[in-house]
Amino acid sequence: MAINAAVLGVTGYTGQALIRLLHNHPVFNIVKLISTSQHGPYHQMVPEFFDVSLPLVQLYDVDQFDGIDIVFLAVPHTKAMAIVSPLMTRYPALKIVDLSADFRLTAPKVYESTYGVSHSASILLAEAVYGVPEQHFSAISNARLCANPGCYATAMILGLLPLVGRVDANAPIVIDAKSGVSGAGKQPKPASMFCEVHDQLSAYATGEHRHSAELVQETGFQNALFSPHLVPMDRGIESAIYIHNPDIGDSVTQWYQDHYRAHPFVTVMDTNTQVSTSLVTGTNHCVIICKPMGDWVVVFSLIDNLMKGASSQAVQNANIMCGLDQTTGLNFK
Amino acid sequence: MAINAAVLGVTGYTGQALIRLLHNHPVFNIVKLISTSQHGPYHQMVPEFFDVSLPLVQLYDVDQFDGIDIVFLAVPHTKAMAIVSPLMTRYPALKIVDLSADFRLTAPKVYESTYGVSHSASILLAEAVYGVPEQHFSAISNARLCANPGCYATAMILGLLPLVGRVDANAPIVIDAKSGVSGAGKQPKPASMFCEVHDQLSAYATGEHRHSAELVQETGFQNALFSPHLVPMDRGIESAIYIHNPDIGDSVTQWYQDHYRAHPFVTVMDTNTQVSTSLVTGTNHCVIICKPMGDWVVVFSLIDNLMKGASSQAVQNANIMCGLDQTTGLNFK
Amino acid sequence: MAINAAVLGVTGYTGQALIRLLHNHPVFNIVKLISTSQHGPYHQMVPEFFDVSLPLVQLYDVDQFDGIDIVFLAVPHTKAMAIVSPLMTRYPALKIVDLSADFRLTAPKVYESTYGVSHSASILLAEAVYGVPEQHFSAISNARLCANPGCYATAMILGLLPLVGRVDANAPIVIDAKSGVSGAGKQPKPASMFCEVHDQLSAYATGEHRHSAELVQETGFQNALFSPHLVPMDRGIESAIYIHNPDIGDSVTQWYQDHYRAHPFVTVMDTNTQVSTSLVTGTNHCVIICKPMGDWVVVFSLIDNLMKGASSQAVQNANIMCGLDQTTGLNFK
Amino acid sequence: MAINAAVLGVTGYTGQALIRLLHNHPVFNIVKLISTSQHGPYHQMVPEFFDVSLPLVQLYDVDQFDGIDIVFLAVPHTKAMAIVSPLMTRYPALKIVDLSADFRLTAPKVYESTYGVSHSASILLAEAVYGVPEQHFSAISNARLCANPGCYATAMILGLLPLVGRVDANAPIVIDAKSGVSGAGKQPKPASMFCEVHDQLSAYATGEHRHSAELVQETGFQNALFSPHLVPMDRGIESAIYIHNPDIGDSVTQWYQDHYRAHPFVTVMDTNTQVSTSLVTGTNHCVIICKPMGDWVVVFSLIDNLMKGASSQAVQNANIMCGLDQTTGLNFK
Repeated sequence: MAINAAVLGVTGYTGQALIRLLHNHPVFNIVKLISTSQHGPYHQMVPEFFDVSLPLVQLYDVDQFDGIDIVFLAVPHTKAMAIVSPLMTRYPALKIVDLSADFRLTAPKVYESTYGVSHSASILLAEAVYGVPEQHFSAISNARLCANPGCYATAMILGLLPLVGRVDANAPIVIDAKSGVSGAGKQPKPASMFCEVHDQLSAYATGEHRHSAELVQETGFQNALFSPHLVPMDRGIESAIYIHNPDIGDSVTQWYQDHYRAHPFVTVMDTNTQVSTSLVTGTNHCVIICKPMGDWVVVFSLIDNLMKGASSQAVQNANIMCGLDQTTGLNFK
Repeated sequence: MAINAAVLGVTGYTGQALIRLLHNHPVFNIVKLISTSQHGPYHQMVPEFFDVSLPLVQLYDVDQFDGIDIVFLAVPHTKAMAIVSPLMTRYPALKIVDLSADFRLTAPKVYESTYGVSHSASILLAEAVYGVPEQHFSAISNARLCANPGCYATAMILGLLPLVGRVDANAPIVIDAKSGVSGAGKQPKPASMFCEVHDQLSAYATGEHRHSAELVQETGFQNALFSPHLVPMDRGIESAIYIHNPDIGDSVTQWYQDHYRAHPFVTVMDTNTQVSTSLVTGTNHCVIICKPMGDWVVVFSLIDNLMKGASSQAVQNANIMCGLDQTTGLNFK
Repeated sequence: MAINAAVLGVTGYTGQALIRLLHNHPVFNIVKLISTSQHGPYHQMVPEFFDVSLPLVQLYDVDQFDGIDIVFLAVPHTKAMAIVSPLMTRYPALKIVDLSADFRLTAPKVYESTYGVSHSASILLAEAVYGVPEQHFSAISNARLCANPGCYATAMILGLLPLVGRVDANAPIVIDAKSGVSGAGKQPKPASMFCEVHDQLSAYATGEHRHSAELVQETGFQNALFSPHLVPMDRGIESAIYIHNPDIGDSVTQWYQDHYRAHPFVTVMDTNTQVSTSLVTGTNHCVIICKPMGDWVVVFSLIDNLMKGASSQAVQNANIMCGLDQTTGLNFK
Repeated sequence: MAINAAVLGVTGYTGQALIRLLHNHPVFNIVKLISTSQHGPYHQMVPEFFDVSLPLVQLYDVDQFDGIDIVFLAVPHTKAMAIVSPLMTRYPALKIVDLSADFRLTAPKVYESTYGVSHSASILLAEAVYGVPEQHFSAISNARLCANPGCYATAMILGLLPLVGRVDANAPIVIDAKSGVSGAGKQPKPASMFCEVHDQLSAYATGEHRHSAELVQETGFQNALFSPHLVPMDRGIESAIYIHNPDIGDSVTQWYQDHYRAHPFVTVMDTNTQVSTSLVTGTNHCVIICKPMGDWVVVFSLIDNLMKGASSQAVQNANIMCGLDQTTGLNFK
């Protein structure tokens, strides 16, 4: 059995990671690589792929998806919405995993206030399923269009899901998150230059980061302050979540373990585990470590921003949409 | 005018930084370098000093401090207490700046529960002055023994001092701090190896770090959760301080600026300033940036852990103890 | 078909990489993990393996190899020679890949002058096969004991093999090599500390590095000066090989491509390829780029020191010793 | 005594380093900061200067140099030549240190073939003095226009000067150099992005780098192959120079020490010194370590690319041009 996959948006960091995963995947078969800006041999765009046999990169055209079962969109936000709508109209059986932000927020107004642009395919927002498999497995398995979550959002949501209903939706929650630089994308800009990042730590978008909207939508926590940081490392996210008096105390690890028992890609480790992003680098895993400290509970949620925070979660969603075991092709070490 | 200075403990990162500062200082004159473990030319221990003329390093002996006006102790905790007591007895006019933790905590019991050893010179704890000049200027100017604060403690205390008396002492406060690796010292250990630190972020000692005791002693905040992290960078500390509903709101920057107006080494910058440890690298400065966000106030406090967090703050304290302008020798860029 | 494998020496960086490779390998089955110093669950020694099911680590005993087809030794040099001899005596059918230096040099005197210790199993040196598959494929396929090459040696030998016989054995050759820090191993030592490595480049063992002996033995080049450097990166080796007037000139790329045409893990790329260790990170590939520049030929040879320079080359050798296709389990991206 | 200095080109890495040095300099007084593209408070362009009192940045105009004694040009090549000519015509007493490449090469044809543009002020090339003070001290002291050398060129030339006349001008010499990323400048480009540099080493411009022309001009060595590399560090250059059979052998260190005895900023260290760029980081020093190895001599030449390779060497040249002791303002540690 083979499922024909296309990747649209191939040179960004998530596109590269996706192609790596699909190339090693036992069922998905990369039959098309598509770009909105360039064409030619992929290894000329990303030299590390010199030894991988891949289709030539083609320029995007809506006519080229015959025979494709599933397409992964790894293009910037606003570009995705212009592509998804004609694809869905033209190819009713096509499944789409969109790694951009365009279909993550169900309310058009929230999208528009968050991203500062109007949504040209807002009618599809109701159909799109938010792709955290640990939360929406069943809906994903029936979805035509899956909106792959943001990297920070994935870490935060998985770190808070077990507390939904258990902690008041208005409780003050602090989320101090730290990310590697690949999260900023491949486009050259001053803030991503080696000399502007190396040997320093910075905070940005405190309380104003776009991924907050996904957090509120998916968990209902209205009063969580999200404070992201940039760390001089390639990849990895740590979300440190601080909750005061959550009425769960010493049993918090047990509670989280019970919640995630059936989920192969979330592991709640012992409270004394050394917290490090290295636990999950290069994997589809989210590792959670809970620390009750007096009146406080601290929940550390760790992911690889390019994997569970983007490309491998996209494959996990695609597995579910296509009826495969969700771990297919993701059990590498 | 010259003031004769000795440094005891010369090869650690704080000892090195101290010698650099004193070598460039217009008044302090390094007349002795002393070690508890080795002797010989300093540049054989720290090759970067090949072009600096310095006294030979001598092995420690209590007899060698005649003619010394001030001594800087940069030895590990528990070693300092054994040295300070005989020095103070023998040389009544000698001034001492101790960079270890041994005289920071005024209550012997707190020292013993924090560091897990009994204090052999506890009678001196009452006499020692805690060396945050922005808080204890007058006492430092009269002190014989100054306990130079911990690096994290400096960042946290300076970030919270303006709120003492204004925010309830029992208010829940989150302090998520991030430090460069030099804070872990020069002793080889697995957790400081390049391959164990590089390209990853880790959390440690959540809610249990020893510097919490200094914070409680100096600010009175009983319910501040201190959560330190290790970042793959050489130096720098960012303390992100989160306070909910502090009843100070949009005026927080003004409030902080008023508080620190007279203090040359704390700068409260505009709320839109890009928060980065690079603002203070290599300087004695603490930069504070306050962000009111709805119900929250976030205070970012930035220092260089080896400078304002250790060696340059020691020089600032020494300046004050010796009646010099506190900025002497510290206005480099 | 399954082949039972044991790994002896499990916590070092090469041991970890080996276990990762064998865990993903379709034929080799890890049936024993063995250590000379500790026992217990592997994920307690290397937390990143929390989600991998592996046998408990046992303490080494010569009795425990019944039913094992192949053993990988990832212990320090001098430790390996004490283990290999009794193993080979007791288990005549057992195949051994030794990742240490103990069986790489066929002349006992060369071993002893290079490593400064006498060889306690020198009788086996004649039997051991030097494990560069691109050179000794046939001998490896019949070997009981394969000496896996040094990391630098692998990069240098593959970069020079096509010139053996073509360039005079006494020609002066400069090899300026640069390696990531993982090559120094996992043992804590001052020179591998983050703050002693980060943000700086150092040279060491110029003209005196132990891997020179392997180079001379395998290529016959008597006058190659090997000058290694330490780079602030986790992994990767670049060997820049400089040859003056080699009488091969502009056809050098073609010559190398012809030489390696049949070898799946050496790729000679176009002369204009951007030379970077990132081309081979995480793979068993050696990438070679040749640049003829006037009277000079420069050959860049790139490997991942933990992969083709150690663990994945060990698996390649094991594949050959066991009659598998040499690429088995090594074609990941 | 004060000497009025202007800096033209203020936001690049060399401009920043220059302003730092001049701000701390006891004689030079920064009276103007000038840019060709922006104006306003300097700390809004480079936030690290928040606590330094500096003149407002003005837009460049040829009329604004009355009262200026010396100007430092830190603008890109080709921009400098358009500025220098009118300045020299209009202000005959003005001294100029140009940090660009525009006046380094005395032959217009060499400039044009090296930089691929015609030289619009070629008449000044004969007047410009190449600013390696260890070679051209006397000419620099009389110069109106000093061409500050390239960073790589400085390291190579200082490493080879003692061999001029002693080693044949046609001898084959390999120079394998490694530089930190700041050498690539502050302009955002793909090759300087954190994720494209971090954790990897690359070679570039092998045998074709522009600084080769300076090397040939200043040393006469016609057959030196210059092979630069990019290292994931902020600053620092190591030039490893390999010479076969140089007929100098074991006395090479003594020879170099004799050559540089009178030069305060070049230190030839003992042959066993650990070679590391950290020896010179943040200083105006060039450290040289010579290693005779059998038939070979290896010379390691170490500088900080932004300091002795650019800004502090510019100050050293300015000191000499203005009749100051050449070490003025450069003896910090």
